[in-house]
Formats: sequence, C-alpha cells, structure tokens
Amino acid sequence: MQLVQPIDTLCSGSYFLPMTTYAESLTRAHERFLSGLFPGDDCLLAPEALVPFSADASQERAMPWAVVRPETREQVEELLRWADTERLPVYGRARGTGRVGNAVPTCGGVVVSMLKMDAIIDIDENDFVAVTQPGIITAALQAKCAEKNLFYPPDPASVRISSVGGNIATCAGGLKAVKYGVTRDWVLGLEAVLPGGDVLRAGGRSHKDVVGLDLIRLFVGSNGKLGLMTEVTVKLIPMPETSASVLVGFGDLRSSLQGAGAVFRAGVLPAACEFMDKVTLEAVRRGGEAIPIAPSAEAALLFRVDGTEQGVAAEVRQLTSALSPLRPVSVEIGRGADEERIWDVRRGISPAAFRIRPNKVSEDISVPRSMVPDAVEGAHAIGKKHGLTVLCFGHLGDGNIHVNIMHDGDVEADVLAAHRAKDDIFRLAMTLGGTISGEHGTGLTKASFVPEQLSPLQMNLMDSIKKVFDPHNIMNPGKGW
Amino acid sequence: MQLVQPIDTLCSGSYFLPMTTYAESLTRAHERFLSGLFPGDDCLLAPEALVPFSADASQERAMPWAVVRPETREQVEELLRWADTERLPVYGRARGTGRVGNAVPTCGGVVVSMLKMDAIIDIDENDFVAVTQPGIITAALQAKCAEKNLFYPPDPASVRISSVGGNIATCAGGLKAVKYGVTRDWVLGLEAVLPGGDVLRAGGRSHKDVVGLDLIRLFVGSNGKLGLMTEVTVKLIPMPETSASVLVGFGDLRSSLQGAGAVFRAGVLPAACEFMDKVTLEAVRRGGEAIPIAPSAEAALLFRVDGTEQGVAAEVRQLTSALSPLRPVSVEIGRGADEERIWDVRRGISPAAFRIRPNKVSEDISVPRSMVPDAVEGAHAIGKKHGLTVLCFGHLGDGNIHVNIMHDGDVEADVLAAHRAKDDIFRLAMTLGGTISGEHGTGLTKASFVPEQLSPLQMNLMDSIKKVFDPHNIMNPGKGW
Repeated sequence: MQLVQPIDTLCSGSYFLPMTTYAESLTRAHERFLSGLFPGDDCLLAPEALVPFSADASQERAMPWAVVRPETREQVEELLRWADTERLPVYGRARGTGRVGNAVPTCGGVVVSMLKMDAIIDIDENDFVAVTQPGIITAALQAKCAEKNLFYPPDPASVRISSVGGNIATCAGGLKAVKYGVTRDWVLGLEAVLPGGDVLRAGGRSHKDVVGLDLIRLFVGSNGKLGLMTEVTVKLIPMPETSASVLVGFGDLRSSLQGAGAVFRAGVLPAACEFMDKVTLEAVRRGGEAIPIAPSAEAALLFRVDGTEQGVAAEVRQLTSALSPLRPVSVEIGRGADEERIWDVRRGISPAAFRIRPNKVSEDISVPRSMVPDAVEGAHAIGKKHGLTVLCFGHLGDGNIHVNIMHDGDVEADVLAAHRAKDDIFRLAMTLGGTISGEHGTGLTKASFVPEQLSPLQMNLMDSIKKVFDPHNIMNPGKGW
Repeated sequence: MQLVQPIDTLCSGSYFLPMTTYAESLTRAHERFLSGLFPGDDCLLAPEALVPFSADASQERAMPWAVVRPETREQVEELLRWADTERLPVYGRARGTGRVGNAVPTCGGVVVSMLKMDAIIDIDENDFVAVTQPGIITAALQAKCAEKNLFYPPDPASVRISSVGGNIATCAGGLKAVKYGVTRDWVLGLEAVLPGGDVLRAGGRSHKDVVGLDLIRLFVGSNGKLGLMTEVTVKLIPMPETSASVLVGFGDLRSSLQGAGAVFRAGVLPAACEFMDKVTLEAVRRGGEAIPIAPSAEAALLFRVDGTEQGVAAEVRQLTSALSPLRPVSVEIGRGADEERIWDVRRGISPAAFRIRPNKVSEDISVPRSMVPDAVEGAHAIGKKHGLTVLCFGHLGDGNIHVNIMHDGDVEADVLAAHRAKDDIFRLAMTLGGTISGEHGTGLTKASFVPEQLSPLQMNLMDSIKKVFDPHNIMNPGKGW
C-alpha cells in the first residue's frame, strides 16, 4: 500500500519550481545516444535490468527509462549536457541505502549509477585529506585511511554499505556526530558536473578557505538536486589512540534520558551516545543471545569515548561516576574485542525490530536535547493512541531519535495507523522545536511535511537557488526539500 | 597611498552582478526617514560623526551617508524594506575588526552598526546551545558560557574585540580551528533580515537537521552580502577539563615546519598548533622581556592540547616525544598561569612586528599542509626579492600562514614594493594549491585577485545566488567574492 503523493502530481511541480515539461519517454535517438556514450552494460535499457534501480531502501518505487554507469567525468559532462537540452529527468544514485526515496526516479528519466566511479585518488598523510571518487564505500575509505593511522569520522549506520558520495549528497550523520559533527563538517572540496555539462570545482586541500560563498556546503545535503559529484576531497584527522565503550542499563526511561545530560555536564564529550528504550531492548532480547544489560533494565545508554589510553580511562571514570546518581541497574565497560561485542547490541536493533512486527515505518526526528524525554514519551503515547508498538533508539547525544513504528504491512488498517502515527510524530517533533529529519532527508516519504517545517520564504529561496544550478529542473525532480 | 581599485569602479559593478544605479546621496526625505526610524543618536548624519564608520582594520576608507544603530529586528526589517525600494547601498558593520575592508561603505549609503543588538538571549546547558544577538563580543559570550562549564570554541585572534555576528559574517577561523573547526561548524540556526524586509529563519536548536538546502552555511562567510543577521544559535560542547601548552624552539626552519606533521602522525590532534619564524622571534625578542625560547632558536612551534588531566598529560608526553627526533633547542611546558605566559609570546607578535618597520601588509594565505614549508620559504624569498622583511607566523596546523610584509608607509617605493610582494605571495599560494584567504576574506584589498582563484563558473553561480537574496545589489556592494 502506497501512501505517498501519486507520482504524476510529484512530477508536475507540485512541490517544486518551474513546471517543466519533460519528455514522456526515451526516443530511439535517445537510446542510441545513451548506448553510444555508455558502451556495453554501462547502459541498461531492458525493463528487467532497470528494476533494481527503481527503488531504494525506502521501498518506494518508480521505473526509470534507462540506467547508465559512467566511468569518467567526461561521460557525466556529456550526459548532463544532453539531458539538459532534451529535458530529461536525471537521478543520481549510489548504493540506494537512502530511506526516504531520494534515489527513486519518480518522473522516469535516466538513473546515473555512480558506483563505477569508486577510485580512491589519494590519501595524503601530510595534507590530512583523502581525495576520492564518490562511489567508494565509506567504510572502505575509512579502512584505507586507518592503514595510514588517519581517521575519517562520519559514520552513518549504513557506513559499510553506503558511499562517500551518497553520504555527502544526503549530509549523512551517524553515531559519532555528537563529537565529530556530520558529513558537512568534513568536506573540503568537490568537483561536480552541473546540468548543461559545466564542471564546478570548489575548495581543495586547504583546511581553511573563505573566498566566496560556500558552494561546497550548498552541495552537501542537496540530494542530487544541483548536479552530480565526480570527485570529493575530505578532511582527515589523526586516528585516536584507543577507545572504550560503556553500556548502561537503567530501571526507568527518564533516568536513562537524563544520563546524556549528566555525562555532558560532567565535562565528557563522548564520541557516541546512543539510547535504547524498553521495547527496543525487548526486541533485541528476543533474539535469545545473552546481552550485557541487566534484565531489569527498561532503557539503556551506550557510550563510546576515544582518545589517549590515559584520557579514555579518565573519561570512563568520569562518565560512570556522572551516571551513578541516576542509579543504573547495570554498567558494562568494553575495551578491545569486548567493546565490539557491546556494540553488537546496537547493531542488532534494526533486524531485531522485526521480531515485534513484520513491517516498520522508520523515522529520524531530531529535537533540541532537552526535549528528548518529551519526544520519546510523546512517540510512545502516539504509538499507544494508534494501537501500534513504537521503538525509540538512536543518537541521544544529538537529540536525533530513530522512531520505528512497527506494524503489519498486509493489514490495511495497520498501515494506515502507522502512517497516521508517523504524521503525529513529525508534528510532535516540530512542536518541540525540532525537525522532521536529522539524517534521512525528506525525499518522497516526507515531502508533504516540508511545508510545515520550512517557511514559504525558505522554500522560495531554495527553489530559486536550485534554478541557478538547474534551470530546467532535470536533477532529481519530484522530491521535497 | 591607496592601491586598491578606485571606488567609482567598485560601485559600478566591475566585480559584480547587475549594474545597479544607486542613489548618489541621501535626500532630505531619506534623512527624515532614517531619523524617524532611529531616534536620537541611533541615527548619525553629521560628517564628523560618520568618520569612525568609514574605515575598518584594513585602513581602507570611504564615507557613508548615514549610520544607523538598530535596537530591534523590526527596525532592521523597516530599514531593508526602505533601502531596497530606494536603491541605497547598505553596509552591515559590527566591531570593524576585519582586515580586508568588508565593512567599508565603498559606495556610500547607510552603515548599519549592529552593536546595540548585543543581548545574549539564552545559554542552555541542556540543549548545549547559545542564542544571541549578533553584536555580542565573542569572548564575552565565551565567558558567559564558561560560567556554565560550556565551551564555544571559535577563537579568531580578535576574539576579545570582535563580535559573534562579525565572526559568522566572515566565517572566522582562529587558533583552535585545527581541532574544533571554524565558525561555520558551530552555527545551528540564524534569523536574518533580507533586502526587501523579509525575515529568514533557518535552523534552530536541533543539533542535526537535513531538511532543505543549507541556507545557514550560505550566510556564514557571506560578509553581509545576503542580508543582516539579527539572531544566531550556536552549538556548545562541554568545557574541556584542562589544557597544557608546549612552546618548542628549533635550530632551523625546516625542522620546525616538520614538527606539526610529526605531532599529527603521532596521533595527537592539538587544540592549537602555531608557528613563528626567525624574524617573528626577533621582533618579539626586541621587546626586551625574556621569552621562554632558547636564544639559538630560529623558529618555534606553540601547541595547546586540551581534555582530561590524564589525557592532557599523555598528549604532552606523546607530543614532545614526537618532536624529539627533530632536535628542538628548547621545550617549555606551560600549565595553569604558566600556560598563559607562554601564549603571551604569540599574542605579542602583532604589536612586535612594528619593531621591524612602521607599517605592514598583513595577509593570511592558506595552503595544503604539506605545502607550508614551500609557502614560508617562498614568502621569505619574495620579501628578499622586493627588499622587504617578511614575517611568517600563525596557524601551521591548518596550513593557514599569516604573512606580514613590513615596510615604511611614508616611502612610496616601499609601499609599492610591499604591494608587489603581496601580489607575489597570493600567486604563490594559488600555485601551491592554496587560497588567497584562509580567514580574512577578500573584501576590498584582495578583490582583484578573486578572479585568479575562482573560476568564472564559480563567480557566476555566486553572483546568481546573491541575486536571489538581493536582486538590487544593495547589500555590501563593491567587494570581491
């Protein structure tokens, strides 16, 4: 059951800019052009070959007319020159792990898979930068950096399956954002092809540069709406010497939610500060494996601290002592291999959720930190109101809570209830001074809520800025801001 | 002697956008409007009262037609509605500490001093944000945050005399950027009045938000060219428990320049990593006070590390041991009061430079870190070629080197040589893959070099984006990107 706006409305500019009259399908000449520019299986036209490119992790779906896989920037230039002239929608795509449908070719057109442009060009231990093509998997880049004792901190939960380019296009957040910031804070330079085929190069290897408006940050998080990145330069720092993690069980929800503040107020800035509510713990426990949290725990916090051996030891002491007035029911400290065992609990949440119900609507509201208790309790109450189980977990340190609304996708009433609950949760986030998305973006699934969060002025400015880059609105049309 | 582009060229759009035909002066009706909107001495019209607002730290100068001092956002709205209709240039101004003339009212018009809007609205130890009006002095905000054990890291050298709004308008960098990033990385939300009087509100207290294009970062570093900020929300972190500083003298330049890399490669990310060359040390020594650097030192590095007591102690050990293969001639470790005594050496540089010659051209190129030795040696060679003494010091950790070209402003040949040396240094920075400005911006004094660094495409995009916000080009016209 599909509850987002019908696709024909999306493509006629209801969320958007100038009504663009797109071509309605590819002509034979179009197909010849694409096959010529992208030889062999770098150009897919057969419907069965296109299917894998019709959806992303949102499970929204729309068929593209063609998929191309550039191997060089020159091909991308040629493609965007042609597509702009021909008024064909273009959908950049990397690993398709996005949760809101930003990679779904809502208006048909050409999907451009960037996965063949995945070369690491340079990892420089003197300049403290990595220069890479966008298709590289983020964890693969991190591993290569680690060989040189260099650290690229951004780590969305998808880090092992998503790409650096996709992370930049979405301004991916992740577990370590509480200490290290989000993807936006790590991009020093980029090369991108714009509609019409011009190549924009902005920034570079200098760690500081204030010449001109910040075109780099404008690209970060623009979700393929301004152009297609072909090369990026990211900042690196020295790899922290070590880390330790602390998994703390609490007898009640409020105490756990107060825990983050207690730790921050004690002067500790953890590299990660994750939260799990009661239902989340239950889901994980149903897997049958013993987890290092007391059975009486109704909520848990998971911290990571990093730095020097001595610094980490000191921060673990400060952190546990800051939490002790909140009377935790269990405290498990993990170092080395034990540390990763603790994180298995966190990593297990997403699959475990399906032990509750077969389907979920997964949202990622973010609120001011002090509002997290109201957000979590509010989300639970909304679940109750709609007769559904709601799991809350995630990046407590950022106020960025993942809310999973569990339901049965085969039961229409359940699906409707889940979507109504989602709507209520978005409104709750906005009422609390927060945002409908801390990480995932809006794409298709949240597009209709954007006008509730952004003012008409903001949206007009964004539309006009997009028009500067993409006057014919060929780049990722039919999505929310 | 004035060597920047004549002002009449600057205002006719040579660097810019649409030629705008501005009013040539204020009419009586204009003056009445301004006096009515800004009662008493919040509106200055008498030439002698305007003089202090004609220049900034660049020592460039142009007389405004009026100066107004808003106390409320509503006054700013009314002002920008009127100025847009009347096609009057508007120059936002805070403390006037900018070094490139961005606050100089090149085309006349109205200077808007934001210093009366200096209230701290909230410092929230739960949300970890400060909400403030733009006119507050940065160090004053930091001191108020420190009372709650909260830390706002951006610290340009001007931190005690410049404002948060000015820092955001210029994307100020500073000493701690190597660990904590620049001002851009700390802005969560802003309220700004646009030409025409609309109020843009973007972001807020949420630490993560990916809805829409990044209008916040577009404002950061836009130097008053898009609108006037009336309120900002910045991110805070827990105050580090302690810090220590290490001042290290080296017998030769190359060893000192290799020191930063050695420290980073040892896994230490210092909170500051400053460099001083031989002439800089000589200038400081001429002050007569003993400085804690061996007399045989021909260059020095100054590090600060921060964190827990134990972590700081460990990092000091790691740092000094990483430097020992470079055979430093002196190592002075400062803790507590001694730490600030060490920093007096760094703080003394700017005044000490005038012991070499009475005038300086002060530039702030930034290059990839590995290029710093070439940049410093190249700057010295350029000084020699032009018969002038060049001091290099500054943010080695960022590759952001302050180059002071010392000369005698009363000797025309000296002034010309200094400006030729400056031109050579900019070209050197660009040749090394760097930027003509890591911190100061381009404003008036570097405007003519912007087209050598930015591509026509970049400048066209910036011009078009500016036009979205400011179609009549009334905001800070006549400056470089």
